[in-house]
Amino acid sequence: MGLKPWSMTLNPADTAFCDHLAALLPTDILCTPEARYLEEPRGRFAGIGGVLARPRTVEQVASVVRACNVARVGVVPYGGGTGLVGGQVQPERPAPVILSLERMNRVRDVRPLENVIVAEAGTILADVQSAAEAQERLFPLSLGSEGSARIGGNLATNAGGVNVLRYGNARDLCLGLEAVLPNGDIWRGLTRLRKDNTGYDLRNLLVGAEGTLGVITAAALKLFPRPSSVGTALMVVKSPEAALKLLAMARDEVGEGVSSFELLHRQGLEFVQEVLPDVRVPFEDFPEWTALIEFGLAQDANDALERVFSAGLEADLVSDGLIAQSDSQRMAFWGLREAIPQANKIVGSIASHDISLPLDELPGFISKARGALAELGPLRVNCFGHLGDGNLHFNVFPAAGRHRGEYDNIRAQVTDIVHELVYVCSGSFSAEHGLGRMKVADLERYGDPTRLAAMRAIKLALDPNGIMNPGAVLRA
Amino acid sequence: MGLKPWSMTLNPADTAFCDHLAALLPTDILCTPEARYLEEPRGRFAGIGGVLARPRTVEQVASVVRACNVARVGVVPYGGGTGLVGGQVQPERPAPVILSLERMNRVRDVRPLENVIVAEAGTILADVQSAAEAQERLFPLSLGSEGSARIGGNLATNAGGVNVLRYGNARDLCLGLEAVLPNGDIWRGLTRLRKDNTGYDLRNLLVGAEGTLGVITAAALKLFPRPSSVGTALMVVKSPEAALKLLAMARDEVGEGVSSFELLHRQGLEFVQEVLPDVRVPFEDFPEWTALIEFGLAQDANDALERVFSAGLEADLVSDGLIAQSDSQRMAFWGLREAIPQANKIVGSIASHDISLPLDELPGFISKARGALAELGPLRVNCFGHLGDGNLHFNVFPAAGRHRGEYDNIRAQVTDIVHELVYVCSGSFSAEHGLGRMKVADLERYGDPTRLAAMRAIKLALDPNGIMNPGAVLRA
Repeated sequence: MGLKPWSMTLNPADTAFCDHLAALLPTDILCTPEARYLEEPRGRFAGIGGVLARPRTVEQVASVVRACNVARVGVVPYGGGTGLVGGQVQPERPAPVILSLERMNRVRDVRPLENVIVAEAGTILADVQSAAEAQERLFPLSLGSEGSARIGGNLATNAGGVNVLRYGNARDLCLGLEAVLPNGDIWRGLTRLRKDNTGYDLRNLLVGAEGTLGVITAAALKLFPRPSSVGTALMVVKSPEAALKLLAMARDEVGEGVSSFELLHRQGLEFVQEVLPDVRVPFEDFPEWTALIEFGLAQDANDALERVFSAGLEADLVSDGLIAQSDSQRMAFWGLREAIPQANKIVGSIASHDISLPLDELPGFISKARGALAELGPLRVNCFGHLGDGNLHFNVFPAAGRHRGEYDNIRAQVTDIVHELVYVCSGSFSAEHGLGRMKVADLERYGDPTRLAAMRAIKLALDPNGIMNPGAVLRA
Repeated sequence: MGLKPWSMTLNPADTAFCDHLAALLPTDILCTPEARYLEEPRGRFAGIGGVLARPRTVEQVASVVRACNVARVGVVPYGGGTGLVGGQVQPERPAPVILSLERMNRVRDVRPLENVIVAEAGTILADVQSAAEAQERLFPLSLGSEGSARIGGNLATNAGGVNVLRYGNARDLCLGLEAVLPNGDIWRGLTRLRKDNTGYDLRNLLVGAEGTLGVITAAALKLFPRPSSVGTALMVVKSPEAALKLLAMARDEVGEGVSSFELLHRQGLEFVQEVLPDVRVPFEDFPEWTALIEFGLAQDANDALERVFSAGLEADLVSDGLIAQSDSQRMAFWGLREAIPQANKIVGSIASHDISLPLDELPGFISKARGALAELGPLRVNCFGHLGDGNLHFNVFPAAGRHRGEYDNIRAQVTDIVHELVYVCSGSFSAEHGLGRMKVADLERYGDPTRLAAMRAIKLALDPNGIMNPGAVLRA
């Protein structure tokens, strides 16, 4: 795709540079990267190679970045490697330094009264959750890859997941950062403060910049009280529009107590049944649309779910439903939800889209997009996701019995149809996965030109040599 | 204080420039500013004059800014004029264009299902609240000056107020912006999306930049369901530490349902009694520390307040309390809270401080700061504010019967003592008021040098001529 921003002026991490770098660091920091550092989950990008640096301290990170900046060698920050848009692998020459934060994986501090945790960037997301739980607190960021994703990567990509509706995305959970800027300077910004109005918001500039403006090395994060009563339900809804009305009812009933509101389409349930037969789908006849709803309250979450279900029946929004009666049932409902992306991967999509829409536009978008795609021929669409946030994973699959390879010639067209319609509906072509290297051209096509120019100016101001994650987010 | 950033290279908005500008605009946009545009509430800064522009459209704003950029004339954005740190008035020459958004005061859109409102920057905050209320929604930003502050200024300064604990500050309530950047380009970023991961966070860069990186002309803002049961209490707490434990209890009891948790010191009640005798203080003997607590729940807020009060009694955290039994009592409790800054103003502080502390440091800070100030001689300290956010207004007054003018010689020393101690306690010298022109030197003294350098680089990248709000936030 020709994504070569600034990289024409970059130098390779060659032997001479690696020798120079090695002399600045303890002996075991640099090595040759194993294959896993050059791969990404969907297999669309393959890394060019380079040298792997695995520093243990922020000072070592700073040494690596400073040396790279002086020598104009690219730096590709690496977290858990779970990103879906190729932000973690650089396919083009010159070979970069791959900077893995895996050894900076300590929880530095937990403050239950303050509801704050301070964790290094390489801490696995699930370990942040556990450290919070050990103090009877909740760290609410939760997503499918939480067992291997690292918190620094979650922040750099502003990760979303199933609790955004209530607690916000990674950005909203971050109070402060420690980071190394492209010139190698260390920003010691690990504030635990809730309010600090002292100038430009560098924190939110680094969050979501996908490693192109610096390397996050640690973060101060918000914790929350654990709701004492958690209830989970599957409700069969008449339509996406009915689901949105049900969500409004739920929020009128329990306010912020709605932790999750996910929409599942029948296609996803069928995929799960087809390729993951061990996962139980708790419906005889698979409904076209199902909402997975979770409340977390001070008390009686299941009672509240029942009230919302009754009101939904009354208003002709829902037709059937199940409320989990035990923790194992709750886990089974969530297991079904998490099985859907796994099943998608096994079936193999022609094209996947991580989109968001204004809620008023969302139901119309779904029917328009399905209609437009139907004109291309027989396709299967699995549309599911975080309805409460207006975030759909709108993934397009081959007709039954056919293979994705047969659709190579229409892949770009499929994505164009989806993204054009998203644009017309005032939506976003990247709701939670970020741009990485996959969506750089989409940003140029659909992004506001004034904002794009401002982004370029900021990139040039903070990283004039273009060393940070070359090819991601922006090209020159 | 010598705050002359970039301004040596700026030109005055002289007659020739005003003639040029007038030719680009409808006839009634430019005029000579009345005195109120050159004043600020605490009387510490007085504007140098200049020409007043009152555009009606974003295109007119863009024309003004573009012309100023070409001619290198300063632009001072003006909202409601309620800021407390001099961000809205430029005291030094050369005379700028004062750009008031007062005529861009339309609510453009309200979407109750989406929980979104779109308002122009000049909309009075109370009018945003009313427009939300008309659709049975809540816009939670609430502060003393809401009857005259304008939403664009609230966003530019990342305003706080009494509901930050639950709903966040202005930054957290903003989904999208329309803004004019320093080169006169219009960013049309009024997204209603909850999730949009498509590059650098320009929104959060403009929010809190106090008009130094561009002019906000409109915003898409979050709305919330109105809690159906609101309860308000005054509880006498043993100490600030006891108040923090009570807050943790309250959050365990009702989670996010704690809307406000304010701390009041006896000194504030005494000032109110002294200078605002019409305001009733509902205690015979004024307690040293009182918490003003508001819950907003789906039901039975007063029951929940009673449970927290009982638990607080049991744990020896509280000794007395009042739960409002009617809306008029609720309003009276809040009236007392809002009377405290009014009383402060009448009494006349030697120095005011808008600080925040990590919650674990907050009780220790209060006693240490009072001890350090006591060594200066007889002073009165009124320490009150948004305890749940760690945000205190720590204001220092003359001894009874004496006048602030007698303390001119120690004013700087008082602030140094407070801000140094804040720094040692990992706090912030500006929690919610911003930097304006008053705290530029504090940023240089206490700010992280790496972040400060990044701020300068961003300012130079987006506003190379330094036209936007010269002298605020940064100096060259």
